[in-house]
Amino acid sequence: MYPNDGYRELGRQECLRLLATAPIGRIVHTRQALPAVLPVNFGLDDDGAVLLRTSAASELARAVDGAVVAFEVDAVDADTYAGWSVVVTGRAEIVTDPAEAARLERTGPRSWAPSPEEVFVRIEPELVTGRELVGGRTMYGLHRSG
Amino acid sequence: MYPNDGYRELGRQECLRLLATAPIGRIVHTRQALPAVLPVNFGLDDDGAVLLRTSAASELARAVDGAVVAFEVDAVDADTYAGWSVVVTGRAEIVTDPAEAARLERTGPRSWAPSPEEVFVRIEPELVTGRELVGGRTMYGLHRSG
Repeated sequence: MYPNDGYRELGRQECLRLLATAPIGRIVHTRQALPAVLPVNFGLDDDGAVLLRTSAASELARAVDGAVVAFEVDAVDADTYAGWSVVVTGRAEIVTDPAEAARLERTGPRSWAPSPEEVFVRIEPELVTGRELVGGRTMYGLHRSG
Repeated sequence: MYPNDGYRELGRQECLRLLATAPIGRIVHTRQALPAVLPVNFGLDDDGAVLLRTSAASELARAVDGAVVAFEVDAVDADTYAGWSVVVTGRAEIVTDPAEAARLERTGPRSWAPSPEEVFVRIEPELVTGRELVGGRTMYGLHRSG
């Protein structure tokens, strides 16, 4: 967060409440030494951990397993730039414990198009930050030109 | 991009066309050795460079100046997860050349709530990648549980 940039910072509980309202988030990680970001759907665990499900063979699973990643969700009004943004930062790990994987099979995000080898990726909510974007008064305070 | 994850990759020109349709993007950088991501509004320069405008005193300006960053835009249908995502990866630099700054004053994103000390940040479009997200056939192919 950039506390001097004029946003209203949100508390952890408010962030987690907003996270639960978002259908899509974006996982930010490093790939080949470059920043990488991908929109994904997700679930939330009881402790606020972000849960993804992906093919065990996916490059994303390999790229994020054991790495500290950021997971961002936002809702911004394109006309006023009012809205909010929440970021969960923490270590991502493929769930390998059979009991935990079995629990997530019941409670985690469900597969829409199942593949034979899927894994859950859990992002620990080590840092949960958020900010309210106040239209016209953001750090950018801009609209697109033209 | 993760070519083996079943997305349709988009060409640079298609990516730039889609970029121009998005009111909001997200700048991904590193802050205090952690991944950071912020939604922002932006403009596009003639060469596809992403243009942001921010307070010269903002932490973001200091954090990204001279750094390789990613700038992501997407449009995803929350029900079907169909949509697209485009990422511009390149070096971000505060525009210091007076003539260039003057040009961007005319053509770049305009300030909605001007602050006395604003700068333009230019993200070079060194790498422009995109993918079509095909609902039900994405890498995730998921919907939220519950």
